[in-house]
This record gives sequence, C-alpha cells and structure tokens, in this order.
Amino acid sequence: MRPILVLASAEAVGGSEQKVLPVAAAFEMIHTYSLIHDDLPAMDNDSLRRGKPTSHTVFGEALAILAGDALLTYAFQLLAERSKDSLLTAEQQVRAIFIISRAAGVNGMIGGQVVDLESEGRFVDNDILEYIHRHKTGALIRAAAEIGVLVGGGSEEQFKSTSRYGENIGLAFQIIDDILDVEESSKILGKSAGKDNRTGKATYPQVYGIAKARKEAARLTHEALQSIEPFGERGWPLSALARRILERRT
Amino acid sequence: MRPILVLASAEAVGGSEQKVLPVAAAFEMIHTYSLIHDDLPAMDNDSLRRGKPTSHTVFGEALAILAGDALLTYAFQLLAERSKDSLLTAEQQVRAIFIISRAAGVNGMIGGQVVDLESEGRFVDNDILEYIHRHKTGALIRAAAEIGVLVGGGSEEQFKSTSRYGENIGLAFQIIDDILDVEESSKILGKSAGKDNRTGKATYPQVYGIAKARKEAARLTHEALQSIEPFGERGWPLSALARRILERRT
Repeated sequence: MRPILVLASAEAVGGSEQKVLPVAAAFEMIHTYSLIHDDLPAMDNDSLRRGKPTSHTVFGEALAILAGDALLTYAFQLLAERSKDSLLTAEQQVRAIFIISRAAGVNGMIGGQVVDLESEGRFVDNDILEYIHRHKTGALIRAAAEIGVLVGGGSEEQFKSTSRYGENIGLAFQIIDDILDVEESSKILGKSAGKDNRTGKATYPQVYGIAKARKEAARLTHEALQSIEPFGERGWPLSALARRILERRT
Repeated sequence: MRPILVLASAEAVGGSEQKVLPVAAAFEMIHTYSLIHDDLPAMDNDSLRRGKPTSHTVFGEALAILAGDALLTYAFQLLAERSKDSLLTAEQQVRAIFIISRAAGVNGMIGGQVVDLESEGRFVDNDILEYIHRHKTGALIRAAAEIGVLVGGGSEEQFKSTSRYGENIGLAFQIIDDILDVEESSKILGKSAGKDNRTGKATYPQVYGIAKARKEAARLTHEALQSIEPFGERGWPLSALARRILERRT
C-alpha cells in the first residue's frame, strides 16, 4: 500500500512514475523491516505474515534482526543514490530522507511501537490509543502521501493536502486493521488474527466498540477525500485507495 | 573512535569542526546501534559492554531492538537535516548519506556480520577472515575517514588518501581487538573477553598466531601513516590515532 500511495500522490501533481519509483521502493523496505522486527519472539512473537512463515521462523532470529537492519539501511542508500542521470535534485533527496527518517524514527513509527509495547495489558485511554496509532502506522503512511508531492514537484499547498489526506487514511487504516483482527480468520488475513485481544492490546474496537469504530473510519475517509478535492481528476488514484482501505476485508 | 576519526580527517583538509559534528555524531549512533543489536541474545548474547550491563539486560530485548532501530534511523535524520543556516550543501549531505549507508549495509557492516555469524564453529580461510574484518568493522571506519574529507571540502586525491588510511587502520583495529580478546580480562576491556575462542569465531590470532598477527597490524599501521603523508602537519591527529590503535591495551 505505501508504494502505491507514493505513486498515487505523485500522479496527483503530474509527477512521473520513474522519478518516484526508488522512493516507493524505499517505503516498502522500511515497512517490511518493521514487520520483520515486530514479528520477532521478543516483540509480537508471530509466526505468520503475508500468508507465509515469518522471517525468524525460517532463517533464525539473528538473521531476521540483520535482515531488518539491512532493509532499513538499504532504503537510505537507495534514496541517496546519485548519478549524472539522477531525476531528483539533491535538495529533493535530502528532504525526502528527512521526512522518511523522521516518520520512521523515535518521533514516528518507533515511538508508537514503544508506547504500544509499554501499554500491553494496561488501561489505555483515548489519547494514548490515538498516539499509538498516529505514530505506529500513521506516520509512515502520511509521509508516503507527502513524499509523492514533494518528489513529483507539487506546491506547498498540495503538500499540505496530501499530508491531511495521509493522516486521515492512516488512522482509518489502523481502525479497520483492528476490526479485521476481531472479525476475520488468520487464513484470510495472512497473519495471526485475534491477537490484539489475547495480548491485551489497545485497539479502537476495544475502546469504542465495533460499530462506533467503523463509523469513525468512515468519517476519517470522508475527510481524506475532501482534502484531495483540489486535485480534481488527477486525484482519482488517491481517492480509490482511500475507499479501498475503508472497504477492505483482508 | 569513529567520531574522532571524522573530526581528524576533516582537520587534515582544513575543514571546520562545526561542519562535521553532526556527521561525527551520526557515526557514533550507527556504531552504537550495531553494538546493541550484536549483544542481543540471538546474536552474541553479551551482558557487558563499555563496562556496563548491555541494553537488553537492563531494558529487555524488545526495547533493545527498538533502541538500535531508532539510533540507526536517527543517524539518517540528523544527516538529512537542513535549515537556512546549514553548513553543508545538499549535495554533500546526499553523498555523505550514501557513503555511510553503503558502509553500514549489506555490502558493508551487515554483510560482514552475516558472514561472521555463518562462520562460527566452521573452518575459515584467510579470504573469508579478511572479508569479515574488512566489512564488519573496516567498512564503517573507512567511511568515517573518507567523510571528513568530503564534508571538510577536500579534493578527490585527499579523499583517496584517507580511504586507504581508513582501510588499513580498520583492519589493524580488528586485529588488535582479536589479540586483546585473547590477552586481556573482561574488566580491562569493559566487554566479555575470551569470547572468540569460546564461540569458535574466526580471528587473526587463531589463523596466524599472536606474533604474526601483531606484526601484520604494525605493517598496516605503517601503510596507513604513509598514505596520509601528503597532509603534512595537518595530518597529525590522523597519525596519532593510527598509532593509538596499534598500541592500545583496552
């Protein structure tokens, strides 16, 4: 989803696909590294991911840790690559690296993951729940939406539009994720279902109930769609993606 | 040592300390992340580092993994930071990020670590031993020596000089490290001594014997000193560092 988001956001400002492909790949690498590390025995201890055995169950813990480290590192190497045929300016590259590293780091994804881990089995209020979701999944999704505009050559105003869009679909994505964890089987999801409840994880369905959580996801999607209205026709991949996130069953 | 190397190499080309400080800090972050992950139970399973209990023994494995991830990510965020007062050009930043990520990644530090892990308890010939050391410790040390020249505004020729210097002291550093692991106590080293032998790790003393290993370290240091002769007076911090590495007892 994150690479598609980068491409869709670039398309919204008329940016070329070729220009953003390495950036899209970098997002997938960072997302995949985070899944490999999240699945480790010391973290979520999960054996199923994308319908396959997790990295550490196949290659062992040491190599899974190193594979995650390598993916994260390679994402930045790819983002910093330059040649005489480079399609991006050095300024664009530096700004992209800054946005992505901030979204993936202590004040983004990793911060959310730490608070999530520390909250397991404890009472979690709305504020903490929102902090976790905005950071753990939201930050990287928002950055993916922003980067497409930045690298695609959009304006500051367009950057803000996709930033709002990304923030809203990021939260909607996580709410739906939590609902599916309750309602669907592991086989359909390709990862362990019913896990949040077993580990005492803070989720939207748990705090608000399923019906209210689904309503909130719909409201967020509506807000996301509104914020990309200025893109007109060119924004259709972004709006299709937002709808898909709301309606997905896996 | 790595931050000092960055500063010394910048000084060799008359670069300002202020300019390279964030880069020096980034190197220490990446080195520290690698130590935290290396010490994990799934890797070297070490409880002592820099004379203190390792991260995972104090904070648990999950937080130690995340702390390493966060340090690695933050290094790149720091390297990509820009403001109107930025002392580095975007081109210099991108090149620094590329060199560092390449040195820290699959074709550098992580590659060396993987081969090292896979070689434990097996017969290791000279070529594999050199591959491990050139990559696991050597790549990042060499990059630190190169970066100072790059960011300090040195020439391509000067870049090559510090590159050779870094390659040689990196290998010398590792040989001395292996010798100290055999000869010194954990208390003096601030980390677990005698470990290489217990885990069947490939080392220089094991393959060549202590005397020959020490001779090789001296030869490499001599070569390093030769390659920085063109810097004259300005190169003294680099030469002092090379001598210090050879003579260190901890």
